[in-house]
Amino acid sequence: MTFYSDNTAPATPEVMAALNAANAGFAAPYGDDTATHGLNAAFSRLFETDVAVFPVPLGTAANGLLLSCLTRPWGVILANGAAHVLEDESTAPELFTDGARLVGLPGDRAKLDAATLRQRLVDWPWDFIHTAKPQALALTQSTEQGTVYTPDEVAALCDAAKAHGLKTMMDGARFANAVAHLGCAPADVTWRAGIDAMVFGVTKNGGMAAEAAVLFDRSLAEEFALRQKRAGQLISKMRYLSVQIAASIADDMWLKRAAHANAMATRLAAGLQAVPSVKLCHQPQANAVFVRMAPALADALSAAGWGFNPWRSLGQDSYRLVTAWNTPAETVDGFLAAVREQAAA
Amino acid sequence: MTFYSDNTAPATPEVMAALNAANAGFAAPYGDDTATHGLNAAFSRLFETDVAVFPVPLGTAANGLLLSCLTRPWGVILANGAAHVLEDESTAPELFTDGARLVGLPGDRAKLDAATLRQRLVDWPWDFIHTAKPQALALTQSTEQGTVYTPDEVAALCDAAKAHGLKTMMDGARFANAVAHLGCAPADVTWRAGIDAMVFGVTKNGGMAAEAAVLFDRSLAEEFALRQKRAGQLISKMRYLSVQIAASIADDMWLKRAAHANAMATRLAAGLQAVPSVKLCHQPQANAVFVRMAPALADALSAAGWGFNPWRSLGQDSYRLVTAWNTPAETVDGFLAAVREQAAA
Amino acid sequence: MTFYSDNTAPATPEVMAALNAANAGFAAPYGDDTATHGLNAAFSRLFETDVAVFPVPLGTAANGLLLSCLTRPWGVILANGAAHVLEDESTAPELFTDGARLVGLPGDRAKLDAATLRQRLVDWPWDFIHTAKPQALALTQSTEQGTVYTPDEVAALCDAAKAHGLKTMMDGARFANAVAHLGCAPADVTWRAGIDAMVFGVTKNGGMAAEAAVLFDRSLAEEFALRQKRAGQLISKMRYLSVQIAASIADDMWLKRAAHANAMATRLAAGLQAVPSVKLCHQPQANAVFVRMAPALADALSAAGWGFNPWRSLGQDSYRLVTAWNTPAETVDGFLAAVREQAAA
Amino acid sequence: MTFYSDNTAPATPEVMAALNAANAGFAAPYGDDTATHGLNAAFSRLFETDVAVFPVPLGTAANGLLLSCLTRPWGVILANGAAHVLEDESTAPELFTDGARLVGLPGDRAKLDAATLRQRLVDWPWDFIHTAKPQALALTQSTEQGTVYTPDEVAALCDAAKAHGLKTMMDGARFANAVAHLGCAPADVTWRAGIDAMVFGVTKNGGMAAEAAVLFDRSLAEEFALRQKRAGQLISKMRYLSVQIAASIADDMWLKRAAHANAMATRLAAGLQAVPSVKLCHQPQANAVFVRMAPALADALSAAGWGFNPWRSLGQDSYRLVTAWNTPAETVDGFLAAVREQAAA
Repeated sequence: MTFYSDNTAPATPEVMAALNAANAGFAAPYGDDTATHGLNAAFSRLFETDVAVFPVPLGTAANGLLLSCLTRPWGVILANGAAHVLEDESTAPELFTDGARLVGLPGDRAKLDAATLRQRLVDWPWDFIHTAKPQALALTQSTEQGTVYTPDEVAALCDAAKAHGLKTMMDGARFANAVAHLGCAPADVTWRAGIDAMVFGVTKNGGMAAEAAVLFDRSLAEEFALRQKRAGQLISKMRYLSVQIAASIADDMWLKRAAHANAMATRLAAGLQAVPSVKLCHQPQANAVFVRMAPALADALSAAGWGFNPWRSLGQDSYRLVTAWNTPAETVDGFLAAVREQAAA
Repeated sequence: MTFYSDNTAPATPEVMAALNAANAGFAAPYGDDTATHGLNAAFSRLFETDVAVFPVPLGTAANGLLLSCLTRPWGVILANGAAHVLEDESTAPELFTDGARLVGLPGDRAKLDAATLRQRLVDWPWDFIHTAKPQALALTQSTEQGTVYTPDEVAALCDAAKAHGLKTMMDGARFANAVAHLGCAPADVTWRAGIDAMVFGVTKNGGMAAEAAVLFDRSLAEEFALRQKRAGQLISKMRYLSVQIAASIADDMWLKRAAHANAMATRLAAGLQAVPSVKLCHQPQANAVFVRMAPALADALSAAGWGFNPWRSLGQDSYRLVTAWNTPAETVDGFLAAVREQAAA
Repeated sequence: MTFYSDNTAPATPEVMAALNAANAGFAAPYGDDTATHGLNAAFSRLFETDVAVFPVPLGTAANGLLLSCLTRPWGVILANGAAHVLEDESTAPELFTDGARLVGLPGDRAKLDAATLRQRLVDWPWDFIHTAKPQALALTQSTEQGTVYTPDEVAALCDAAKAHGLKTMMDGARFANAVAHLGCAPADVTWRAGIDAMVFGVTKNGGMAAEAAVLFDRSLAEEFALRQKRAGQLISKMRYLSVQIAASIADDMWLKRAAHANAMATRLAAGLQAVPSVKLCHQPQANAVFVRMAPALADALSAAGWGFNPWRSLGQDSYRLVTAWNTPAETVDGFLAAVREQAAA
Repeated sequence: MTFYSDNTAPATPEVMAALNAANAGFAAPYGDDTATHGLNAAFSRLFETDVAVFPVPLGTAANGLLLSCLTRPWGVILANGAAHVLEDESTAPELFTDGARLVGLPGDRAKLDAATLRQRLVDWPWDFIHTAKPQALALTQSTEQGTVYTPDEVAALCDAAKAHGLKTMMDGARFANAVAHLGCAPADVTWRAGIDAMVFGVTKNGGMAAEAAVLFDRSLAEEFALRQKRAGQLISKMRYLSVQIAASIADDMWLKRAAHANAMATRLAAGLQAVPSVKLCHQPQANAVFVRMAPALADALSAAGWGFNPWRSLGQDSYRLVTAWNTPAETVDGFLAAVREQAAA
């Protein structure tokens, strides 16, 4: 499981400590507890603006709930064709939005390109009632290929979208890894760049099962709450979700944990780049490394117990290696040694 | 929060211990871990038949997923009019079933009555394409009014339903309380009585956030898995759900915890019955007590810090008091003393 | 088929003439033709206020589209339990509304009662996020039992609904029969009484396949248009729908045709009332007569070729007889003779 | 409106004659009339195999209903990216299928290519629960660019689809134009080539508002009937739909009418090809001609009263001209003279 995905990692010590501490006595259900009450203020500080926060147990659901607040059933959601909402969530977006449509746009390294988006929106037959119309833009940060949008790139995309009335959301399942890479303020790459709402991922960054839906546009809060209940995503013992989220953002732990994962990806990439028979697809910016190597080499590594995934969308001999908050440097080095050994064989 | 609901209680020590123990190293995601792998066998032993088990984080979602496997969008789900699926889940059943219809039937103390059900099904215009047709029966065990179906009652209801081709499900958010009351084998009041699938509740009985969808009709498993993914209910770090469930059923802890809650309800009811100005609506069979008392008395108790809910569906001056796995006898006695004191005032 | 339903009748001469006249040359599709363009003005005159009109081929769809504009998927639609939207449209309302819920209220002769509605709305747990909330009221005019709401009754119901923020709609598949009975202005029993939108039925009153969705609240028009397209209800050769509707309301033909049907129902009821073994359920107000008679008598009439329907919801031996714009007085008299003859036998 | 679309044309004399003839006396509703009863046999003869036929008033709905019988809500429908179901039906397919997904594949001249389809299906991550899976293939015959699939091409596509378990449907809104071009038996290009169900278009070929959903796989009939009712597409006075369809296929009128439209398109294309400043995009095979010309020329023609549509998907200066069953040769010649005159100016 080593490099299979960051969702194979356990919860961080701070998350487990928070859960154990929270497990005492009675607490009001459905978000009326003190831990949940504190989230709005904590995230408003983190993002330097007043936000409304809703803890959601699963990322697919958090994405779907946000999308359903940003589009109507006859709308189109634009995303990069490799986005999680298109490739990894079955037809959950359709279910949550009551039947809106996802349209994937091309773009290198799983990123949307502002010029492409702008042209597509200019060409759209807006006055033609027969064609569904774009109502929302979905960005993944960091992307499914471990790349990161800069604040300027997010702003350019949001500008293009908003020029045609689209609302914007960010799937930030790995937002921490993106911000750790960018070194910017969380606000810079979100609402200041035009994002209306986002999923602030906790699970992949050392949570147990918790994401924070962060609404920069707080006018969406009432609908979000109603949809969350209706979708079976309003957890009764909410305190246990909220303390995971609170523990994650306290003391910048989210950034520290992500920075470690990123560093391990960089270390992994550097080592792999030195192996002639392995080709890096592109430099990692977050916590995932994509390589091309001979299937025989990949098979030998798998047989030796190293876990990672083939990644067909980058080509037949492509593979993904993901690092996590708890990936030891020794494990990276051990893997690199194994690669060198097998490649030499 | 004392008697507000059993979802205000914390997780049991055995659940927390299991979570802490599970929090080590990597584990395969989405149910491919050892804890999840063990659930089918554990529940097959518990229910004395081969079952398929799916951990689901929320009860509303577990109910919705089961219903969606038992009816098509043009079908009708029959339930008692006071059922959780009708009164406490917004329009989640409609969302999960892609638009099937819930129809509430009358019945004392939140229980369906076999004769009523039989007559309704006999009268249904089955050959009339314009009227939606019943396809599923939903029973809540124990019910929203703290009552319990006997195995014979479940069998009579399932017989009536199956005579017309309906599938049957049990919302067992408080199944443990029902079995602890009945003293029967779990099988006796479920599949042996004709139930096709059930939600085995863990959260309200001392879990953190976990329910087990148990499919006695294992032919539903493939569809359940696909729907669970699509509904954003397939949690990535599944081990944390599965160990809660496993810890709950190990060593009969689910029954012991429920038996305590039931005993506290009995103690509460006995004490309240002795207060002239408080009228018991009916004898509790599970972990909830329903009473009528003057609003002034209820207000005085609330003002003194005792938490419980008004329960309008039983009448204007009705109230619900729920006990949990962790309700201390001293708390019950303290509350009874407060009632006597305020009633005397 | 004689008294089976008014949907067994053919189209009126004026409707057929309009269709034949329209069948010449090219016409812009999807409502951009002159016949459709004229509908807004024609209906605005008829209703003495500015309205937006959308031709829809089917009544079930017209009802569903209106409901979907008046409620969100987490809303509840209140209607009498015998309403067409509940009993005769499968789960179409759920499909069109993306999963809202219909709740049937009791009420004599298929009519909602303002006091019942008011109490139910007062008792509703509005602040409880777990229970779906009423957002729309649906009235059927005339009702499924041939009764008619007076303007005062409609106003009382709409007042009760609007006091809690509900929107209101009228299923007027047999609106013509109601107005012909009331003798009031169409406005009096619709928008002046608080109705936001209605289906003005044409098909049952001598159309071929056409209903007019009439929006008194014109702010709903944009959403209606988008939903109509999405639901596959935006017909390309719209002229053929629009001329049916226009021909129906020209020269008060809709009222004349309905008045005839009503008169035939009155004649039928008077005759049946005189037969001792036949019991009138209630006096007809529109074009349907409901009676109780021995099944043997009903069977004998059926065997003699007379068509009508059993109507279980009024009791085991109840039957419905519907008259139409083209029901000849001789046919009514012939049927009455047959009843007398068979009853005597 | 001349070349705007074939849905601007009126109904044929034979369709109007059938409607007038049908407009006499009572008839059983909802398809229990003699005209509807005759359709199964008539289409079984036409297609040389036993089929089940359902009249549907609108093509978008007929497509949606068929798709909903061929896929489940977690499935993917594959179609050419220019297909009507993707570009011209808003999100109706999502509504009718309860949220399945459409994925557009590339392909020249609006046609799917078997090799492309085969490769895509081979590459699909079938074992990965997180990605929605193809369950249906949708072909448009003739296509949105006036091209036609040969029987061999349909067979190759259906073979590729069925190798992976997909069901197949044909959107035959302009099926008549395709068969008139091919000169084959209707069976050859449908079920003999692997099509499970189709929409046999009548409206665009001289109907008023009628399509026939033809199920070669008759096991789909029960679900189709239930879905048709639920979608508000089961028309009460069905006779009027059925006689349009019956009149269209009687005496090969559907082929004769389509052959005329095709011939007019050929005449139009030949004439335009001779104008140097007009460039034919490709030779028409059905009843639509696509050209490139300077916007100034197009504007001049529009100003002179000639109706046709820009067609952006073929490029900025592209236009579509559609002929119909009633397009006079003189009109084509008159338009060609106008083009030559304006082009010379």
